[in-house]
Amino acid sequence: MKRILLFGAGLSASTLIKYILDNSEAESWHLDVVDQNLDVLQSKLGGHPNATAHSFNALESEQRRPYIALADLVISMLPPMYHVDVAKDCIALQKHLITPSYISTEMRALDSEAKEAGIIIMNEIGVDPGIDHMSAMRILDHIKAIGGKIESFKSYCGGLITPDSDTNPWHYKFTWNPRNVVLAGQGSAACYREMNELKYLPYHRLFQRLDHIEIEGYGQFEGYVNRDSLNYLETYQIQDIPTIFRGTLRRPPFCEAWDIFVQLGMTDDAYMMKNAESLTPRQFLNAFLPFQKGVSVEEKFLKLVDYRKDLYDSFEYLGLFNDRVTFGIPDASPAHMLQQLLEDKWKLAPGDKDMIVMYHEIIYRKGEIGYVISSAMVAEGQDDRYTAMSNTVGLPVGIAAKLILNNKIHEKGVTLPVRHEIYSPILAELEQFGITFKESEKQI
Amino acid sequence: MKRILLFGAGLSASTLIKYILDNSEAESWHLDVVDQNLDVLQSKLGGHPNATAHSFNALESEQRRPYIALADLVISMLPPMYHVDVAKDCIALQKHLITPSYISTEMRALDSEAKEAGIIIMNEIGVDPGIDHMSAMRILDHIKAIGGKIESFKSYCGGLITPDSDTNPWHYKFTWNPRNVVLAGQGSAACYREMNELKYLPYHRLFQRLDHIEIEGYGQFEGYVNRDSLNYLETYQIQDIPTIFRGTLRRPPFCEAWDIFVQLGMTDDAYMMKNAESLTPRQFLNAFLPFQKGVSVEEKFLKLVDYRKDLYDSFEYLGLFNDRVTFGIPDASPAHMLQQLLEDKWKLAPGDKDMIVMYHEIIYRKGEIGYVISSAMVAEGQDDRYTAMSNTVGLPVGIAAKLILNNKIHEKGVTLPVRHEIYSPILAELEQFGITFKESEKQI
Repeated sequence: MKRILLFGAGLSASTLIKYILDNSEAESWHLDVVDQNLDVLQSKLGGHPNATAHSFNALESEQRRPYIALADLVISMLPPMYHVDVAKDCIALQKHLITPSYISTEMRALDSEAKEAGIIIMNEIGVDPGIDHMSAMRILDHIKAIGGKIESFKSYCGGLITPDSDTNPWHYKFTWNPRNVVLAGQGSAACYREMNELKYLPYHRLFQRLDHIEIEGYGQFEGYVNRDSLNYLETYQIQDIPTIFRGTLRRPPFCEAWDIFVQLGMTDDAYMMKNAESLTPRQFLNAFLPFQKGVSVEEKFLKLVDYRKDLYDSFEYLGLFNDRVTFGIPDASPAHMLQQLLEDKWKLAPGDKDMIVMYHEIIYRKGEIGYVISSAMVAEGQDDRYTAMSNTVGLPVGIAAKLILNNKIHEKGVTLPVRHEIYSPILAELEQFGITFKESEKQI
Repeated sequence: MKRILLFGAGLSASTLIKYILDNSEAESWHLDVVDQNLDVLQSKLGGHPNATAHSFNALESEQRRPYIALADLVISMLPPMYHVDVAKDCIALQKHLITPSYISTEMRALDSEAKEAGIIIMNEIGVDPGIDHMSAMRILDHIKAIGGKIESFKSYCGGLITPDSDTNPWHYKFTWNPRNVVLAGQGSAACYREMNELKYLPYHRLFQRLDHIEIEGYGQFEGYVNRDSLNYLETYQIQDIPTIFRGTLRRPPFCEAWDIFVQLGMTDDAYMMKNAESLTPRQFLNAFLPFQKGVSVEEKFLKLVDYRKDLYDSFEYLGLFNDRVTFGIPDASPAHMLQQLLEDKWKLAPGDKDMIVMYHEIIYRKGEIGYVISSAMVAEGQDDRYTAMSNTVGLPVGIAAKLILNNKIHEKGVTLPVRHEIYSPILAELEQFGITFKESEKQI
């Protein structure tokens, strides 16, 4: 029997646990799961005979090491900052490791040690990052194989809600950490390349420069640029590509409405508002509008949005003109106050389901002729345990575990799923779970 | 003979040194000045019999302490971060200290120790901060004395150039640290109060919300809000004032043109541009403009500025459409690159003079009648040693030194010049040096 050791049984581990247990008979696996919350963990394991629940502190090297020593493969679903410490233990004990998270600089530095230990540390194998890498590489490798010249790579992903759950004018609800949604895009300017021109876009213009995308059966989406699009040029082996753009998807007119918050400064997390506690939402909004004698907040706001009724309505929906309640939170940043308003209005209702949308558009040339390949994936959540997020993160991690334990992967060291030997079987098995890409190609 | 010990003989100390030496006979003073640059120092002292030049390291407590022990009063013109250490020595040795800089939190914490030592640590006594406090307090105290109710306090200051030196479309040249000019206003949102409404203005809107000011004989200025205008409510004892606004002055259309840099993200100092070294100014500008097939940088820029010829010309003046030279600086932020372009174009020419402009507008009510007091000061530099900056910083510091050494100030502890006993004689003596406020009052 082979032992899989999983650290962390949070929201996005549900499908992973189910996948491992569903395969445990056929594959002769035993699953050890460690989580502080033993109740939730046991409900996820459902008394399965091939699983053991543990509640020791997985963040303590001394406590986890004996379990790593017994395992054949370790999966870390801990918060990303803890992966490197786990990786060091795995190197010392010569055990393979999988994490769904971005490769940090510290993690990358462990590459040669991992190779010497003869193990693979597979990262970025969930969704954005993960399925996006794999599906993109399948197309890029195909174009290279047929002798095409890749001219443009655009890739978008978004964590949204299903059309049935879409009941507000923002066409958005929180399906992951609300704070990260409010602060999304802050920090360094976003960066991309278009027709060999390097472009930088500061945060306060991020939601103004949008790509418009239509996905069959799902309608319109819009994509804003996601951090540094040039990060993967080398990984994807497309260094000389004239156009590369990675974006985040929303439903229109989300970006236009969100941009109002950005323009006004209401997403700022860098300072505390002096009078946060006693402010009403209307006063909160008014603190970012200019003073005009005798002009109401509503009138000032309408003027700001050029009398666009839809934008006004989206703000009214959030209760921003409400003068009857106060925030009641002392020492809060504008971002914190905004988050409080949004959490109330963008909460998933019972029965609501999340949806992961991914879209690639790749242009290449073969001889004299140009082609565009479009590839779209939409994954809808099943319920509030097996969400789209949990499925699209957990399934590729689980399948990767199977491939590694069955010695199907020959790569060693700190890596991510961009090689044929890994993405091909994973994408094939994902299809059995309904995670499929609809591809079309046409001449341009 | 009384000994004054001065740390730092940089640009803004020239007038201070002259003032002390000019008064040294009548007041029986000896001046000890410490500066690493002995040549510059000796040229400023001009072999005066009542002065001694020293070049020991004033940042080393052990080296400076013996000199502090011999002094009757210490003046620190060191970079602001060093004042607190000097203050600790002054407390230990029971010597008065003057600095022109903002009171830091650490400095404020020394208040009771300074009082126990029986010394005064006088700060914020140059220009913005300094003359602005004193001239404002004179008006505020006057209004309180006649029983007026203060309703609005607006105060502006700017370091500019004289009309004769004004030879470019920006009406601006560097008269102090260029880096600080490029980064001005970045960080926390600016804050002010208008008709009892607290207002926050994020950096990317700072140069869009402007007050327009006319100063007799000097024409038009515009003021943008300067950090947290509410910082001085308590110091000025005007906690309940409905309107308070502190601003920085520029000549129109500086703010409108500068706002283009801000909007495009070209003042960002938070990241390095990937290809800084090889970029031309035109490519640098284009990196922040959207890609448009077949449309030139000039056309895209003209569209951005709504075909405003004056704004286009101000950018052309800076060489931003130049495609023949490269920056040649590796690993540079956009702000750094912009600074390099500006330093070339906004350099003071021989004979150019700087100019400090200050303007207060205070509204008060007495009985049924409202009044507005306007108070303007314009100080022009004499030459490149006795600049307006050097005069307006050095003279109040020098006069304060005289008042302290003659026991005219009874306050102790960490303080700033907001009391009648200090501002009144200083403003009176400043008038002899031509630093005068032109005040007018009218009913509204």
